[in-house]
Amino acid sequence: MQHYTNINDLDSLKKTVEEAVELKKNELQFKNLGKDKTICLLFFNNSLRTRLSTQKAAQNLGLNAIVMNFGSEGWELEFDDGVVMNKNKSEHVKEAAKVIAQYSDIVAIRAFASLTDKEKDKAEIVIENFKKYSGIPVLNMESATGHPLQALADAITMEENKVSHKPKVVLSWAPHPKALPHAVANSFIEMMQLQDADFIITHPEGYELDSEITKNSKIEYNQKKAFENADFVYVKNWSSFKEYGEVMKSDSDWMITADKMKLTNNGKFMHCLPVRRNVVVADEVIDSENSIVIQQANNRTYSAQIVLKKILENL
Amino acid sequence: MQHYTNINDLDSLKKTVEEAVELKKNELQFKNLGKDKTICLLFFNNSLRTRLSTQKAAQNLGLNAIVMNFGSEGWELEFDDGVVMNKNKSEHVKEAAKVIAQYSDIVAIRAFASLTDKEKDKAEIVIENFKKYSGIPVLNMESATGHPLQALADAITMEENKVSHKPKVVLSWAPHPKALPHAVANSFIEMMQLQDADFIITHPEGYELDSEITKNSKIEYNQKKAFENADFVYVKNWSSFKEYGEVMKSDSDWMITADKMKLTNNGKFMHCLPVRRNVVVADEVIDSENSIVIQQANNRTYSAQIVLKKILENL
Amino acid sequence: MQHYTNINDLDSLKKTVEEAVELKKNELQFKNLGKDKTICLLFFNNSLRTRLSTQKAAQNLGLNAIVMNFGSEGWELEFDDGVVMNKNKSEHVKEAAKVIAQYSDIVAIRAFASLTDKEKDKAEIVIENFKKYSGIPVLNMESATGHPLQALADAITMEENKVSHKPKVVLSWAPHPKALPHAVANSFIEMMQLQDADFIITHPEGYELDSEITKNSKIEYNQKKAFENADFVYVKNWSSFKEYGEVMKSDSDWMITADKMKLTNNGKFMHCLPVRRNVVVADEVIDSENSIVIQQANNRTYSAQIVLKKILENL
Repeated sequence: MQHYTNINDLDSLKKTVEEAVELKKNELQFKNLGKDKTICLLFFNNSLRTRLSTQKAAQNLGLNAIVMNFGSEGWELEFDDGVVMNKNKSEHVKEAAKVIAQYSDIVAIRAFASLTDKEKDKAEIVIENFKKYSGIPVLNMESATGHPLQALADAITMEENKVSHKPKVVLSWAPHPKALPHAVANSFIEMMQLQDADFIITHPEGYELDSEITKNSKIEYNQKKAFENADFVYVKNWSSFKEYGEVMKSDSDWMITADKMKLTNNGKFMHCLPVRRNVVVADEVIDSENSIVIQQANNRTYSAQIVLKKILENL
Repeated sequence: MQHYTNINDLDSLKKTVEEAVELKKNELQFKNLGKDKTICLLFFNNSLRTRLSTQKAAQNLGLNAIVMNFGSEGWELEFDDGVVMNKNKSEHVKEAAKVIAQYSDIVAIRAFASLTDKEKDKAEIVIENFKKYSGIPVLNMESATGHPLQALADAITMEENKVSHKPKVVLSWAPHPKALPHAVANSFIEMMQLQDADFIITHPEGYELDSEITKNSKIEYNQKKAFENADFVYVKNWSSFKEYGEVMKSDSDWMITADKMKLTNNGKFMHCLPVRRNVVVADEVIDSENSIVIQQANNRTYSAQIVLKKILENL
Repeated sequence: MQHYTNINDLDSLKKTVEEAVELKKNELQFKNLGKDKTICLLFFNNSLRTRLSTQKAAQNLGLNAIVMNFGSEGWELEFDDGVVMNKNKSEHVKEAAKVIAQYSDIVAIRAFASLTDKEKDKAEIVIENFKKYSGIPVLNMESATGHPLQALADAITMEENKVSHKPKVVLSWAPHPKALPHAVANSFIEMMQLQDADFIITHPEGYELDSEITKNSKIEYNQKKAFENADFVYVKNWSSFKEYGEVMKSDSDWMITADKMKLTNNGKFMHCLPVRRNVVVADEVIDSENSIVIQQANNRTYSAQIVLKKILENL
């Protein structure tokens, strides 16, 4: 594997999940793999889980991690070609990407969607320009349209918790006061499309995600109906894709409650975190025994580590 | 020792000071103790000494340190239970603490007093919630009401400088233009209450600290009288505890001057730093041979290191 | 070598360049030199190349690097003596420098020119105070008046690209919308004054640099004439030195174009980066085969590493 910017960069999701589960039993078994190599973690946005788990994964592989908050510590980047750079942007990504590659063996990037320019977000200008110009492997730590490290951690977590060979998995929208990106939902869907599962997406009408991503995945506008007999309920808010970046609904009808969870097959509650309690999900659900959100967070380390292992082996 | 959030978490202050003095002679003697373990340093506030000395201490123990400025790099935390989180706070400490513990063996936290909500400050909501939810050892890098790493460094420094078995030690308030927390003064007092010393606190009337902390410690409102024959003068500003967080006096009457130091028994001048020269203390005092503020700062490394050693041995 | 705050701190530029070229062939050959030692990197300003390359250089030497953004993470520093510190500055450099030296073996500092106070900038108050008070080696990561790590990287890059024993080297001013410091130009000039080269500086009238630095270096106000037969064209904007910090000219007359490069002897284009495309230099030039800006950035690692090696050997 060269880059990991999409779940489909994996040769085999199934095999990767198995390898991660195996790795987790002895997380230091590849401690020498990253020796004398450097990963540069560039954050264009805030981060808690990704920041810590990716550093932890690097450390487990003996890989030196340099962390940089690009926004506050570096220079504002220009991404367009041929521009007369006489405004606020002082460095072009062409130089920045090539320069960073002089000091790193791998570059990891977090760059959220703008939610204002759909075309630029879809074009993944940060990730794609770093792939184009840096010449080194690029790791997606959540980009405009995807969060494949999260999706892999989710797949590991479902593998560890599944009780049937073909579980029913629901991705449910839930309310949120702010406009959030589509990245986590997109990558979860792409990951589920690689799984043998009864997968269904539920959200209010008007909240349809990019059809190039949902493809033939089932959509059910009745949340309660979707929850029936579910083994896993994966919850996430996103803003409108059609009315790009708009919040069209924020009342609590779609909040995840214990009553709704009763409709499931003793279903597990999943969320990538951070989560707003009693807005997205009621305390009674996230605090229940069926909540596996902390296990998901824990698997972020192994998701990053197995991916970094594959990248290092290919260097 | 599980947590170190208060000087009283130490089994024995006396023994710990002796161990620290011993450790200082060969600071790398426990270089393998922290191997393949991680400490996460979370800063909710600025820091110079604590930031650098705790990283240095971790490094001396072979412990991997991950530093995070929680305010600017992470998500704003909610600490209250049962809240509908539809305002500016996007993650609850319940999740944050549990998640951080997935990637760390020890979590160190700096979270200053608000100085606006006395009850929440006294409840130590950040430290206590991390103790409650993280399930891993918590190290206090200055909390709302205490700075026990500083107090331990102070004890080490006094041990190295004492000329009598029962020294006279004065904690003196000094003026400052801004409202400062009580944490350093509190921990110094709690530490002194464990020592065999003639200990006295001096401050203007109205600047009484929390009586649950000062307990039976002597208070003398006449600064000059307090200084008489002192072996150590420990200086610190704090805002009013009664009129919580207010600055009631900022003129220079209480500034530490050479004239006042002449009243002492060739007393040493101590301060935790940063210090405002010619406001808190005159240049002539802090620049004198009797000033041991840099030695105090140096001992911050050994204070953190002996505490981390004890925590690591107990993991 | 004790400190490296100016290119003239090197015993021999020529020998150092040769050593760096040799080091680059096997960058890990001195991996044990920095073992159990710490360098503290203090940033008072933003940085990309310096931040990453200095960390990389430290890692290549086995040296532990602690990075601190002084402005946002620490306390605002006072540099003047005898001040009553009752305003916004909460720590004096006397304490800060001594304290940092308690936790570090080397301190590296980035502190740009104010461009408002010429005397203080010329006095290099940050670097000089750290040299005076810290008692440990100080590494200049770009100060008010110099950027000697960049100049050394430039010397290495010219050595790797030179086709004649005495190349013609032009330092050319170019336009920029913002007021920039003189540091890079100053250090490049000081470095060139140590070289056997035909060196010429070209800039619009009124943009003369500090004559104490340019000394007898040739100045040519006609940019095209200066470019004739040049082997290296080193480009940099700076604000006026005489009208201190002012931007007197920002039209595109002085931008580096392919037409101007045609006047050279197949000359190499150099710039320290970040660079504003189509303001400082046309895309056609920086994207050409004769552009060696990325190689310059790469050599920042070896510039820092050879300097740190010399400092470590002298500890």
